[in-house]
Amino acid sequence: MVKRAPAPKRPRQPAAAGGPAKPWSGRFDAPTDQAVEAYTASIDVDRRLYRQDIAGSIAHARMLARQGIIPQEDAEAIVRGLEEVRREIDDGQFPWRPELEDVHMNIEARLAEKVGEAAGRLHTARSRNDQVVTDLRLYAKEAIARTVAALRRLQGSLLDLAEANREVVIPGYTHLQRAQPLLLAHHLLAYFEMFDRDAARFADCLARTDVLPLGSGALAGVPYPIDRAAVARELGFARLSENSIDAVSDRDFVVEFLAAAATCMMHLSRLAEEVVVWSSAEFGFLILPDAFATGSSIMPQKKNPDVAELARARTGRVYGHLLSVLTMLKGQPLAYNRDLQEDKQAFFEAEDTLLSSLEVFARMLPALRFDGERALAAATAGYALATDLADYLVRKGVPFRQAHAAVGKLVRYAEGQGKGFSELSLAEYRRFSKGFEADVLKLDVRAALAARDVPGGTAPRRIRTALRRARRRLEAHSRHA
Amino acid sequence: MVKRAPAPKRPRQPAAAGGPAKPWSGRFDAPTDQAVEAYTASIDVDRRLYRQDIAGSIAHARMLARQGIIPQEDAEAIVRGLEEVRREIDDGQFPWRPELEDVHMNIEARLAEKVGEAAGRLHTARSRNDQVVTDLRLYAKEAIARTVAALRRLQGSLLDLAEANREVVIPGYTHLQRAQPLLLAHHLLAYFEMFDRDAARFADCLARTDVLPLGSGALAGVPYPIDRAAVARELGFARLSENSIDAVSDRDFVVEFLAAAATCMMHLSRLAEEVVVWSSAEFGFLILPDAFATGSSIMPQKKNPDVAELARARTGRVYGHLLSVLTMLKGQPLAYNRDLQEDKQAFFEAEDTLLSSLEVFARMLPALRFDGERALAAATAGYALATDLADYLVRKGVPFRQAHAAVGKLVRYAEGQGKGFSELSLAEYRRFSKGFEADVLKLDVRAALAARDVPGGTAPRRIRTALRRARRRLEAHSRHA
Amino acid sequence: MVKRAPAPKRPRQPAAAGGPAKPWSGRFDAPTDQAVEAYTASIDVDRRLYRQDIAGSIAHARMLARQGIIPQEDAEAIVRGLEEVRREIDDGQFPWRPELEDVHMNIEARLAEKVGEAAGRLHTARSRNDQVVTDLRLYAKEAIARTVAALRRLQGSLLDLAEANREVVIPGYTHLQRAQPLLLAHHLLAYFEMFDRDAARFADCLARTDVLPLGSGALAGVPYPIDRAAVARELGFARLSENSIDAVSDRDFVVEFLAAAATCMMHLSRLAEEVVVWSSAEFGFLILPDAFATGSSIMPQKKNPDVAELARARTGRVYGHLLSVLTMLKGQPLAYNRDLQEDKQAFFEAEDTLLSSLEVFARMLPALRFDGERALAAATAGYALATDLADYLVRKGVPFRQAHAAVGKLVRYAEGQGKGFSELSLAEYRRFSKGFEADVLKLDVRAALAARDVPGGTAPRRIRTALRRARRRLEAHSRHA
Amino acid sequence: MVKRAPAPKRPRQPAAAGGPAKPWSGRFDAPTDQAVEAYTASIDVDRRLYRQDIAGSIAHARMLARQGIIPQEDAEAIVRGLEEVRREIDDGQFPWRPELEDVHMNIEARLAEKVGEAAGRLHTARSRNDQVVTDLRLYAKEAIARTVAALRRLQGSLLDLAEANREVVIPGYTHLQRAQPLLLAHHLLAYFEMFDRDAARFADCLARTDVLPLGSGALAGVPYPIDRAAVARELGFARLSENSIDAVSDRDFVVEFLAAAATCMMHLSRLAEEVVVWSSAEFGFLILPDAFATGSSIMPQKKNPDVAELARARTGRVYGHLLSVLTMLKGQPLAYNRDLQEDKQAFFEAEDTLLSSLEVFARMLPALRFDGERALAAATAGYALATDLADYLVRKGVPFRQAHAAVGKLVRYAEGQGKGFSELSLAEYRRFSKGFEADVLKLDVRAALAARDVPGGTAPRRIRTALRRARRRLEAHSRHA
Repeated sequence: MVKRAPAPKRPRQPAAAGGPAKPWSGRFDAPTDQAVEAYTASIDVDRRLYRQDIAGSIAHARMLARQGIIPQEDAEAIVRGLEEVRREIDDGQFPWRPELEDVHMNIEARLAEKVGEAAGRLHTARSRNDQVVTDLRLYAKEAIARTVAALRRLQGSLLDLAEANREVVIPGYTHLQRAQPLLLAHHLLAYFEMFDRDAARFADCLARTDVLPLGSGALAGVPYPIDRAAVARELGFARLSENSIDAVSDRDFVVEFLAAAATCMMHLSRLAEEVVVWSSAEFGFLILPDAFATGSSIMPQKKNPDVAELARARTGRVYGHLLSVLTMLKGQPLAYNRDLQEDKQAFFEAEDTLLSSLEVFARMLPALRFDGERALAAATAGYALATDLADYLVRKGVPFRQAHAAVGKLVRYAEGQGKGFSELSLAEYRRFSKGFEADVLKLDVRAALAARDVPGGTAPRRIRTALRRARRRLEAHSRHA
Repeated sequence: MVKRAPAPKRPRQPAAAGGPAKPWSGRFDAPTDQAVEAYTASIDVDRRLYRQDIAGSIAHARMLARQGIIPQEDAEAIVRGLEEVRREIDDGQFPWRPELEDVHMNIEARLAEKVGEAAGRLHTARSRNDQVVTDLRLYAKEAIARTVAALRRLQGSLLDLAEANREVVIPGYTHLQRAQPLLLAHHLLAYFEMFDRDAARFADCLARTDVLPLGSGALAGVPYPIDRAAVARELGFARLSENSIDAVSDRDFVVEFLAAAATCMMHLSRLAEEVVVWSSAEFGFLILPDAFATGSSIMPQKKNPDVAELARARTGRVYGHLLSVLTMLKGQPLAYNRDLQEDKQAFFEAEDTLLSSLEVFARMLPALRFDGERALAAATAGYALATDLADYLVRKGVPFRQAHAAVGKLVRYAEGQGKGFSELSLAEYRRFSKGFEADVLKLDVRAALAARDVPGGTAPRRIRTALRRARRRLEAHSRHA
Repeated sequence: MVKRAPAPKRPRQPAAAGGPAKPWSGRFDAPTDQAVEAYTASIDVDRRLYRQDIAGSIAHARMLARQGIIPQEDAEAIVRGLEEVRREIDDGQFPWRPELEDVHMNIEARLAEKVGEAAGRLHTARSRNDQVVTDLRLYAKEAIARTVAALRRLQGSLLDLAEANREVVIPGYTHLQRAQPLLLAHHLLAYFEMFDRDAARFADCLARTDVLPLGSGALAGVPYPIDRAAVARELGFARLSENSIDAVSDRDFVVEFLAAAATCMMHLSRLAEEVVVWSSAEFGFLILPDAFATGSSIMPQKKNPDVAELARARTGRVYGHLLSVLTMLKGQPLAYNRDLQEDKQAFFEAEDTLLSSLEVFARMLPALRFDGERALAAATAGYALATDLADYLVRKGVPFRQAHAAVGKLVRYAEGQGKGFSELSLAEYRRFSKGFEADVLKLDVRAALAARDVPGGTAPRRIRTALRRARRRLEAHSRHA
Repeated sequence: MVKRAPAPKRPRQPAAAGGPAKPWSGRFDAPTDQAVEAYTASIDVDRRLYRQDIAGSIAHARMLARQGIIPQEDAEAIVRGLEEVRREIDDGQFPWRPELEDVHMNIEARLAEKVGEAAGRLHTARSRNDQVVTDLRLYAKEAIARTVAALRRLQGSLLDLAEANREVVIPGYTHLQRAQPLLLAHHLLAYFEMFDRDAARFADCLARTDVLPLGSGALAGVPYPIDRAAVARELGFARLSENSIDAVSDRDFVVEFLAAAATCMMHLSRLAEEVVVWSSAEFGFLILPDAFATGSSIMPQKKNPDVAELARARTGRVYGHLLSVLTMLKGQPLAYNRDLQEDKQAFFEAEDTLLSSLEVFARMLPALRFDGERALAAATAGYALATDLADYLVRKGVPFRQAHAAVGKLVRYAEGQGKGFSELSLAEYRRFSKGFEADVLKLDVRAALAARDVPGGTAPRRIRTALRRARRRLEAHSRHA
């Protein structure tokens, strides 16, 4: 969840003027309007990038010195100063100044206070355009790693829950109508697959994020003999950007992260919906532990599945962030436009929403309890075995379409009589197809489950294997992580 | 712009447990999981509603006492206590506790510390479900008023700018190709119309927002002889909700506010695009004053229209909030679900984005300077009067389609010759239509402008009238506001 | 639902070239590339506007003649020719030609075949820019009228259903947990309110749609002595557009229609969700009639609520159209850009989706049957009267918060004992509060319903009145429609 | 572009009843309501899948026979019959019946007319739930291949255009303000990179699409000894789905396709914006050939970039489809719900929009002409070399921040004097920094370009290499395709 400062009054007061000069004040006659400063400042959002910004500056300064572009002693002063600045921010002692616009200028201005003129050499051979996207790519790489780790934990929770309820049978639903009996573990493994695809998508996104833009300058490259490959190595980037214009204007990696996050939240929203529906009094399959439910200020009996509801709702928020960035990018001419600044808030808020949702589900799932008796009763009641009756007739030689029609009429008859299948006599069965013989009376839920013995099917022996394979896949991931 | 606390480290640490009891703890065996508390707490967002919450509680308490539902002295204690709480929050002295979930429980718990048992009577005959939506409707009414006021100021700025540049002629564009000459004032008045429709939409939204839900209880109404009409009067609501179930689950007014805000931001984005394009070196019609431009950290010559770019980009953000709330509401069964909590962040952030954008444009517009000579030259150059030539032929009796075709060929000829219309001889004109006579050589921009003398057209006398009417409309609004 | 031609092979073959000349071919050396023709032609979409286009042209031609701008006999030929064209299209005999781009040029070219040179005078004093938006506004006015009529029919169906099930009691839900008993009629009336707000929003949209843009020309007005007011009267428009630049570039009315449609679909999606949930075997309150259910190709027992599911899903489609138009409009400079062409497909598809959804629900609702016994049992079971017990204690003088806590503990105790409230003895009640007295044993669902006797509450006498008022409101609307 | 049937009147008339029985009519007492049939039929959309549906059925039937589940002769009859059906559809002779709901039942019913009872065995061991998603995955694989091929053609066009204009220099822009000179080829290669990432994203999507769901039955697997691997081999799928519940409810591949399509359209919209801006009279860098421009019905001089405008606008449409499917999927409980039907229209329309846009740009780009002189003049004018002056000072030992400030003041001075850099004397330069020496006067655009000699930079030798590498990458792709 996105944490936010207290904001009881609308905090739109422009920052006080008269602070340190803008980096570009030489060319201007008049100071910036205060409303403009407030409107354009990004420091409240982009300060989250301070570690990445400092790491990037350190790598840049060292390279400049190695290449003879700035003096070695200036580079050393810069590195030392930046490390001090990082400590100040870590410790909450840093004097952030909104009138300095963004995290980059705040840090550079503070550096100048610490190391004097040397600081003025740091921005040689770079621009904020390549700097900010370097920072954001560094951050995104970490965010993806955090997300994948959280996905793996959630998959582990799903397996724990599935293994702890290995025998539980539930009615499978299509159209929220009871369709065919399932093992609960099979159902939970469906989510395992979804989160596996999510992790794969984030990994694909990582490959396209892991590209160093620094060295692209404002848009055209820089007129200095820089060593981009060395900077990439120091910062841990796999590749250099191929085109400086693209490098400063590309935010595909943000869109791709948000699209993967939206898809992942969509999966969570489906699981959340099932938690809500299954813990209703009417379904009653799922018992929410007190620690994961909340009550009502007015209705003393209530135990509500608020966590699931909020995850479901926050899915919309991540969709909104995706759309917001796509809209922002649409129709922008190359190269950098200030519009691009709006990528960060969407990224950060989507990450916070996704991670906190994954984490709270990973904690909640193992605590869920199932009412196996009730679920089994539901899976048995009614006509959930109708497909199995049709398949029974097929095995007796009846073409499927005829078998399906015969069982359809049988259901209509039984419903009219107020009877379940198990209450019908063989004679009643045979009224609808001569294919029915005495062994039809032996058909039950266990037989129906066991019969679906195909790859991916709900037969218990398949599910046992599937659980083992899933556990092994997960362990393999954690070994490689 | 949305202000946000420093968040250099991801602030997802759950709140410390062991605080005051939840309002519903009687029914629960186990305390809430800390991750759940962090995930479900809304206090960082909804504390913005404290004034509305306190006003609603005061009106509710007074009514309860008048109706004999709670003792008069308890109501007095409650009112006195709530006023103290309000002062504490106003003064930044209030001890917010995230473990109390939301603004309502924070205030009620603090009230209990101040006035003891009487506080326990405040929640009689209401639920958080009707309470929170009452607070949000009160807030939304104020937000709409602020928005309409900002729109009126922006319209005023447009008129100021139009009047200050009353003589400026620009090329009108379709497809970003020069089309026909226009008065700049006419062009600016197009935005006046857009913002006028925006204000009308917000007014329509206000009428549907101005409805008191309090008294609906959790969803079914309350079993007390309350006087809803009296509460509505005290809080300034025009109507009572008609159906308690609808009252607690309806968020149409949020969607409608967001849709109006999205449309208004879209209008701003069009104006922003024109500021960007017109202040390019190539167009050069518009000179951005230093106070409303920003520079570059690397390119010393740059003066960038960042305000316009950010407004354009933030349009996407408001679209995202609209989509986020629509997505959240889709498929929700009645009545209240926790999903609804997510309405507030979208509302507040959209309001902040919209208001700050309206305000910064209202300040920026009067400071813009136009290069009227350059604009006039552009309006005159090329073949911007081609339509007027066709219309000239029509007045000489040529059917429009033939006239259009003849002038099309004339343009092709002139282009091939590298000549503008004014450089063509009468003989050259007549090669394409015998309808051309000597007076065709008198056609110029001024004549073209003056000829469009229809309601809504660009003829100077029409625009003078339109400016006067617009000013009168605006003054009428400010008298009624 | 959007009907669409068979498209088994991808139909992207460009239209054959060599047809009639483009209206603007005079100025061009080379013919249009065929892929460009295919990409830019809008005739498959905009031909839906043919009646509006012809009506607009007839009114325009008559006015031109009355004002002496074209000869009277030409106007008569034009009107006669256009009426023939309309009959041809009505009868499916019209030779549509994609190479003519759009509905306007198809009709004008056909008119030229019928009436010769007079047709060439029709486009005097107008442009496609003002023509197309006039057509779309005419269409939108009719679409709004159709939508409001469909909403009124749906409201009528809701009332029919509510009146036919006047005695049915259901559990009211919050968080999909049983909360408090409700009258079903009360619940259905909540939707009546939603659709009422929808109708009001469409009415507000109509007022802003009912504006004539014709006479604005390409963007600047036209240099002819036209009579815009007369055209408005003939076409039934309430007002003239105030600013020609705005008139050709404004699509707010499309956005507003789509936003209202999205909100209305959201309401339908909530009703749809309840149809799905309530007709599940577990809830079982609702019995879907065969005529409104569909079966399964494989599971013979299934009766699925497909109509509700599709309406729920198609909500997303309308959201998509809203977003699509907002995105298209963002950042467009004035005045007309070809981008605006994309307004129509979104409008038409959203209208089709919305209207067909409203209509199928209006048919389905009266056919639904409720299992009143089962719903009553659910409303009675468990602890749905817990709030009433708390309120009972309040009436005995216990502060609400204490009462709530006592009942919370009582619920926990009863749950532990496996008992409902009605199975508890007075002594057991009094273990939790001395406020309980013998009359507590008389509390039941009927009493709980009757007690919520406040405006908007579920008390049967309130709901009887609400039904009568709703019926009268509906009748008043149909009298005025 | 999406082709659509003539729809002048709203075509919502329900299909005639009394046709062939539904596959599930055995269980139902009453026929389907006609409005329901019209609302639920998907045949207008899903008939596009007929080839995939028939291929899937043939592979399924053959496998059933090989496994002894149906008689060999029945399988042969089925295969023969399905091939006839395919020819009928190919030839436009197939009698589509909307009352049969969808492409699957239309084909199966027609098969029954052709081969009798054997047709009734085809649906053994499968459900429409696994059938439809198999069809859609087959289709999606082909759509991705088409898309990637179109992307490669577009990349080829970009390279052709870049190579044909190898010497052209343009001003590079940030904030639409002239920033630094660029080679046009460098700029065009930025788009080459974007479309390369797009192709990579579609390839990643393909890997997750290339999974066979058939054999999952309705949701639980099927009780027959089927051979899923053999079906996968025959249909060319790389993998089997791992979980039958997930297999029938997963539409991630649709979301992923739409997200990749949205991103790709966003790239096109940026290119489109530049076509629009650069072909304005004010920029004038780009001359649109007649074959790729359109004119005006009223303004004879106009040549409009409609293709670019429409591509820009249709970006919004694809965003809308993405949102629509994400919204549809949100909160759906497992497994299949009818909501999922709405995946196809979004997929098909997005594919049509994307493909036609890619194709028209691939044709248009090589036809564009550049006014190299005008572009060079723009790149030289003003203060585009200001960064180079600052970098010049840095090379003379001035710290970057001081150099930047000095040049900023120099620009302000020159602007005040109405002079460009080349009109300043050395003395004037030295007023702002003693670092300026005589060689500063030699700084020009060529030198500025050549100086940016870093990987990704605009130096001509870098761009020559980049063009060669890009061509080789493209050739390698076409060899592997």
